[in-house]
Amino acid sequence: MRHRLKDVAEKAGVSVKTVSNVVNGYQHVRPTTRARVEQAIAELNYRPNLSARNLRKGRTGVIALAVPELDIPYFAELARHVVVAAAELGWTVLIDQTDGGREQERVAATGIGDHLIDGLIFSPLALTADELVGLDGTPMVLLGERVDPGPADHVMIDNVAAAHEITSHLIGLGRRRIAAVGSQRDPEGASARLRLAGYRAALAAAGLGYDERLVAPAPAWHRADGAAAVRGLLESGVRFDAVFCFNDTLALGALRALHEHGLRVPGDVAVAGFDDIEDGRFSIPTLSTIAPDKERIGRLAVELLVDRIEGDRAAPPRALTAPYRLEPRESTLGR
Amino acid sequence: MRHRLKDVAEKAGVSVKTVSNVVNGYQHVRPTTRARVEQAIAELNYRPNLSARNLRKGRTGVIALAVPELDIPYFAELARHVVVAAAELGWTVLIDQTDGGREQERVAATGIGDHLIDGLIFSPLALTADELVGLDGTPMVLLGERVDPGPADHVMIDNVAAAHEITSHLIGLGRRRIAAVGSQRDPEGASARLRLAGYRAALAAAGLGYDERLVAPAPAWHRADGAAAVRGLLESGVRFDAVFCFNDTLALGALRALHEHGLRVPGDVAVAGFDDIEDGRFSIPTLSTIAPDKERIGRLAVELLVDRIEGDRAAPPRALTAPYRLEPRESTLGR
Repeated sequence: MRHRLKDVAEKAGVSVKTVSNVVNGYQHVRPTTRARVEQAIAELNYRPNLSARNLRKGRTGVIALAVPELDIPYFAELARHVVVAAAELGWTVLIDQTDGGREQERVAATGIGDHLIDGLIFSPLALTADELVGLDGTPMVLLGERVDPGPADHVMIDNVAAAHEITSHLIGLGRRRIAAVGSQRDPEGASARLRLAGYRAALAAAGLGYDERLVAPAPAWHRADGAAAVRGLLESGVRFDAVFCFNDTLALGALRALHEHGLRVPGDVAVAGFDDIEDGRFSIPTLSTIAPDKERIGRLAVELLVDRIEGDRAAPPRALTAPYRLEPRESTLGR
Repeated sequence: MRHRLKDVAEKAGVSVKTVSNVVNGYQHVRPTTRARVEQAIAELNYRPNLSARNLRKGRTGVIALAVPELDIPYFAELARHVVVAAAELGWTVLIDQTDGGREQERVAATGIGDHLIDGLIFSPLALTADELVGLDGTPMVLLGERVDPGPADHVMIDNVAAAHEITSHLIGLGRRRIAAVGSQRDPEGASARLRLAGYRAALAAAGLGYDERLVAPAPAWHRADGAAAVRGLLESGVRFDAVFCFNDTLALGALRALHEHGLRVPGDVAVAGFDDIEDGRFSIPTLSTIAPDKERIGRLAVELLVDRIEGDRAAPPRALTAPYRLEPRESTLGR
């Protein structure tokens, strides 16, 4: 059952007008009254009717989440967290799949049509942060790599440190010839660049040489690209005893290619991914990976965005870092 | 490069006004002139500026696709096809994840806030078609099961026939004790009901008895639910040599549970799914499944919806059926 303003007023023993003042953030409410209203709101799990409130402020109550591809499960899982965090604050999220195209990213960044949305959480692929921010006044929070100093609010994880950690995990298990799958050239993806940097730093820290023949590019990061990259490595004749894939879908493709070549994982080749998508918890073998705190990324992004929509739009951009953790599973540890 | 109205006019050798008349569908244009303009539009791959056009007609140029869960890959893959088909007709698609909640489905069905969208492609879970259509005048195309006679335009596949076919595939391979995973009671999902009916019909057609102990419910259709259901079957002691899961994510969970129990697939137990998601083409073993023509489902849904938005809203609802095919792979055939 959905409660109304008057239910809150009744429970708090105040007038509807007073509840409305609290909900709309007016200053002239006595602290004790405010506390009573807030408690009634909490007890009734009341949600303000944002539609009416937004209309008064010229808002739609809708924010967009623009991601390159929903069939990369990382983005679908992230979307769930954004939708949930936004709903708790009374906002509706619509999801815009840009396919990483410049034109679609431009449409998303300019508020989709004629400002149907009040703000945007954006994981861009084709456009740089500077290109995006120059486009329009739609409040925006960027996900992904830090541009320093950033032109917009930003939520990220430390990709270099995470890639360093999972590469070191492979080294710690005695692997010495570690391939990297997912490098990109034209256009170079920021995630690919940073994860490659972390991989190289871990090799250097362990006194292992960097062998360019062990780095396999992947134009996109789907299962088929990971399988093709590993087949390429196997056919090239270069020797390797581990593969670090720059995301989990690449790694699931790598598992398949190794299986088809009759190689055991991790006996012959250990495999690690990045993202901690659900698939990797059920694959055979289960997939060792880096687990970014997606719930926290989604929540921080929504909070930054709502703060920007409702607060000071000219305040300097903020950059927040979400945690991650290493999840070692069967593909590196065995059963 | 994006062409403008005047580029089309120049190429066709007519005035900008004439091109505009053609684009906006005015009747009083000579057929030969219209043909010339249409050819120029095709050659330049010109797309009318729908934003301006829609504004004149009180439209936003945006349609929504409302699905229960994007982290069920079937819906993410379907979303891609809807986005592509809509873009070809000049429409922007925003995706609304309802989580199958009654309240969220109601919000989606009433145009999201104050009619931010011009129409909706809807895969409902909680609300029935009749409940949805009664809500509002937002043009709507339903995906999923047919309600006969339907209250709205509808795109579906023949779930009973598809489930019959994949069950018969298992029977044809000599399997006699076939479990079914994914039945639902409260609330009963329409897909679950129809796929169970197809399974039962195939057993009956082959003269095999129906054993209720072989039917495992699954409250949701994620990997974890499939794994839990198969563990339950194994622990119950009931004997089975095949499992038909009502979607692919359930089947991927089933593969994992069988693997953990040391059972070979398909040697000891054959496994089949439904949906043909990408995961099942790379899993170990690859997954036999029913492949609905998702590209066609997306295209038909967009065409029906645009036709309803631009055409006769009072015309009787139409129901279109998209094809599917059986995809036998390693999980039933072996290598």
